[in-house]
Amino acid sequence: MKRIAICAPGKRIEREHADAVLDLAQSIGGLELRFHPQCFARHGHFAGDDATRLKALVECANDPSADALWFAAGGYGSNRVAADAVVALGPAAQHKTYLGFSDTGYLLAALFRHGIGRPAHGPMASCIAREGGEAAVRRALGFLGGSTDGLEGGIDDRPAAAFNLMTLAMLCGTDLMPDLTGHVVMVEEVSEHLYAVDRLFFHVTQHLGNVAGIRLGRISDVPENDRPFGASEEDIARHWCARTGIPYLGFADIGHDAGNKIVPFGLAAEALRA
Amino acid sequence: MKRIAICAPGKRIEREHADAVLDLAQSIGGLELRFHPQCFARHGHFAGDDATRLKALVECANDPSADALWFAAGGYGSNRVAADAVVALGPAAQHKTYLGFSDTGYLLAALFRHGIGRPAHGPMASCIAREGGEAAVRRALGFLGGSTDGLEGGIDDRPAAAFNLMTLAMLCGTDLMPDLTGHVVMVEEVSEHLYAVDRLFFHVTQHLGNVAGIRLGRISDVPENDRPFGASEEDIARHWCARTGIPYLGFADIGHDAGNKIVPFGLAAEALRA
Repeated sequence: MKRIAICAPGKRIEREHADAVLDLAQSIGGLELRFHPQCFARHGHFAGDDATRLKALVECANDPSADALWFAAGGYGSNRVAADAVVALGPAAQHKTYLGFSDTGYLLAALFRHGIGRPAHGPMASCIAREGGEAAVRRALGFLGGSTDGLEGGIDDRPAAAFNLMTLAMLCGTDLMPDLTGHVVMVEEVSEHLYAVDRLFFHVTQHLGNVAGIRLGRISDVPENDRPFGASEEDIARHWCARTGIPYLGFADIGHDAGNKIVPFGLAAEALRA
Repeated sequence: MKRIAICAPGKRIEREHADAVLDLAQSIGGLELRFHPQCFARHGHFAGDDATRLKALVECANDPSADALWFAAGGYGSNRVAADAVVALGPAAQHKTYLGFSDTGYLLAALFRHGIGRPAHGPMASCIAREGGEAAVRRALGFLGGSTDGLEGGIDDRPAAAFNLMTLAMLCGTDLMPDLTGHVVMVEEVSEHLYAVDRLFFHVTQHLGNVAGIRLGRISDVPENDRPFGASEEDIARHWCARTGIPYLGFADIGHDAGNKIVPFGLAAEALRA
């Protein structure tokens, strides 16, 4: 039996969605999911104020009886607690898998920077509410149970990392940013205009000079603009990679959708498959 | 007679708006406005492709018969040509005033970084289309003609700079970013959710550790979100300034509106008023 602590460092999860995830986990077996009460708290935009979210996050990560910490939802807000969290983590936090994406990329980044546990990009509990979301949650639960079936198919023998593009842009140059020298960095985005994607690529490619390359996840739900941008998301990725000398390595099977695959940070995928 | 070259490094300006600005300038007198034909070009999202915009920008800046370069419009795109532009500028570019804001902040930044001319934040020709836009354009034309009436009222004896918040965030850590040590930095934003403003403040305050302080311009046209953020834009500015030890210096009279005042970069305002 693997025991999975769950907290919500940004947005809350709805009770009905948590219940659906619990039902699904029970039908699969082998996992005990523990939704921290903070997952359902509410404070303006957030699942509780900064102190509440920080406390729950630290409790879950430092719980010696839990094997993993799964983030309930993204939204926005994990960057407000990440720096304080990592310095409060003890030995029990070292041996955990941490799974999330989107806004929780701030935490994955900070954990990776500080060498704490095994951060991985992948579906969160709240993904149950997406179209086809059951498959996404099954993939996450499988990974948390020890399966490698849900790993992103293009991960090779180079260290990897995956981020929402905006999250990565906001991380660059901050005290949460890990050293990604030699890493294959995958990025995905949702609900941003293509000109904003271009702007974000300008920013991140200026900061990622030492990476092994960039792979492009899905850029989904692009809003209609008053005029067409005139270039595709792959044109954009190729343009800024070429300008900065970063190898562009093609598409990645990640995105803000139910098909979002799992990317363990660093060389963890290789270790899992060995 | 002051001669003002005008180009559009991002979005095009409509002919009717340029004509309205020409009429206004003629009624005031003392200024000769020269809209470069590139201002009206169209290439997808942009006023001509990168090569076209770069060429016009360099021509205008290097024109020895022009006293100033006024940017026609913002939009998006000046970051795609700024690095190539600054290395192509000659002696005639040194003696010019450069006026714009929003997306053209990438150019103001790059010029300021390289010590070229006198960059200033202020209304552009396209502002004529705003509500009350005639006053904004009169302010810009007055400044280009030598008046100090339109200067932001809180500029003191410390060097200053002003940016759109997103533009500043995307500049941080790039090869366009000037050294703002000791500067009072003013920021404004438009059409961004408050959670996005919070995220941008997280990013820029991590990069601006040596500034004299931050002043908050108007955060306008904030879209309605599915839940209230729970803090005002000033709460946000105070929060991140406090976290990073940057003095928060109160409001600034800049924004994406007709009231947008002029902020010469560095100590130029002091020189103008002397």
